Amino acid sequence: MTPLELGRKILAQQPFSVLLGAELAHLAAGEAELRLPLRDDLLQQYGFAHGGAVAYLADNALTFAGGSVLSNPITLEMKINYIRPGVGETLIARAQAISSGRRQAVCECKVYALENGEEKLCAAAQGTIMSRD
Amino acid sequence: MTPLELGRKILAQQPFSVLLGAELAHLAAGEAELRLPLRDDLLQQYGFAHGGAVAYLADNALTFAGGSVLSNPITLEMKINYIRPGVGETLIARAQAISSGRRQAVCECKVYALENGEEKLCAAAQGTIMSRD
Amino acid sequence: MTPLELGRKILAQQPFSVLLGAELAHLAAGEAELRLPLRDDLLQQYGFAHGGAVAYLADNALTFAGGSVLSNPITLEMKINYIRPGVGETLIARAQAISSGRRQAVCECKVYALENGEEKLCAAAQGTIMSRD
Amino acid sequence: MTPLELGRKILAQQPFSVLLGAELAHLAAGEAELRLPLRDDLLQQYGFAHGGAVAYLADNALTFAGGSVLSNPITLEMKINYIRPGVGETLIARAQAISSGRRQAVCECKVYALENGEEKLCAAAQGTIMSRD
Repeated sequence: MTPLELGRKILAQQPFSVLLGAELAHLAAGEAELRLPLRDDLLQQYGFAHGGAVAYLADNALTFAGGSVLSNPITLEMKINYIRPGVGETLIARAQAISSGRRQAVCECKVYALENGEEKLCAAAQGTIMSRD
Repeated sequence: MTPLELGRKILAQQPFSVLLGAELAHLAAGEAELRLPLRDDLLQQYGFAHGGAVAYLADNALTFAGGSVLSNPITLEMKINYIRPGVGETLIARAQAISSGRRQAVCECKVYALENGEEKLCAAAQGTIMSRD
Repeated sequence: MTPLELGRKILAQQPFSVLLGAELAHLAAGEAELRLPLRDDLLQQYGFAHGGAVAYLADNALTFAGGSVLSNPITLEMKINYIRPGVGETLIARAQAISSGRRQAVCECKVYALENGEEKLCAAAQGTIMSRD
Repeated sequence: MTPLELGRKILAQQPFSVLLGAELAHLAAGEAELRLPLRDDLLQQYGFAHGGAVAYLADNALTFAGGSVLSNPITLEMKINYIRPGVGETLIARAQAISSGRRQAVCECKVYALENGEEKLCAAAQGTIMSRD
């Protein structure tokens, strides 16, 4: 199984990710791209992606990126800056490990909204993934 | 309309909050309590509440707490530390504004998992809510 | 040696803390209070405590609070919200562990400015301290 | 006056930055590089740069980067992940605005330790700078 196939299997085992409809588009050592097609029930009262949906996507992308270089990964913490309302067809979260050791990885993630073929930066996140081993 | 009634009306206008099943249990000036009954489809692959669901709840509780003392509130950023797996019947997020002015409020939030009548601390968050006015 | 005596000995071994003039006022299991008398050379261009001095104080108070319940502590990360300009005689940082296990502690800290006997909230921080063992 | 000259003038007006010995190496629209030669009194008890000195440098670099695209800038918040002990001759903080509008800029910063001509990533930070206007 490739890392991407394994990652997709794990994503399919997360009922919350299935509920939201997230898709793993890329997974390699220290890199992950997670996509969230923007359905109506992912929005807030103004018609934008709910901040909680954006936070979910960033959190999970960070975890996949860190988890790709750690065994038994767990997310310790993350921080997110919301930059622009999430509007369009799809949210795209791209995360990468900017450092990793045996015990932990520090990852960062940018979330983009894809609208009419154009990507706009919606949020930036940073977090710590740790191995439970 | 009381602040709580108004808050519940807003929550009901957030399709994402309706999808997840969040309930506003308390809303007063600078204080909010949001609850999330833990259904199977809010979990991750190990049977715990998905970090993204916890992040959603903290994010939204912070926004309600800050929004209760600001006009036209928008969440700028937040940070969350995951402390313990979310297991049990319900997640409870209690947020409060620790400072607020005309333009912004700084809020903190604790998320507890309620299991067999006992609350355990699951996560702690802190964030900035700003008025768009 | 009491925890406070040990803490003061460690603080005295930190040249940076000596340079800034920080004082450890309290240290107990999961609790620390660090004070920074506001000299002119701790300020920024508007006459307020420099954000970096506030960040130092919060960071170190978090580390002492977490370190009081962990062996071989190291600070993984922290986040700080600046709330009010730091003016007055002294900055006071009070930190506590809101959760701790064998491997890590999550701590929060409030920084107050003491002016004419009155404390005003200047900043709020949250961070993760980990044991290197 | 060029932006860099103006930035250096501002830095020289910050007594805390003068105390620590920070130098502004680069300043352009949305970009700043701040350097901190590692003297003994910037260290902690193990001989590494004190986390508070690293936090100061990241905080100030974020503020310069954001301030270069905003009028009357103030730092609302920042978060920092410590990645590797700061050892070597100099700490180098490079910050950039990843988004900016009239009212606020979101900036990120990497802090490197320069040792024997080699840069190693020490910390990663992210923060919000706001205009007081």
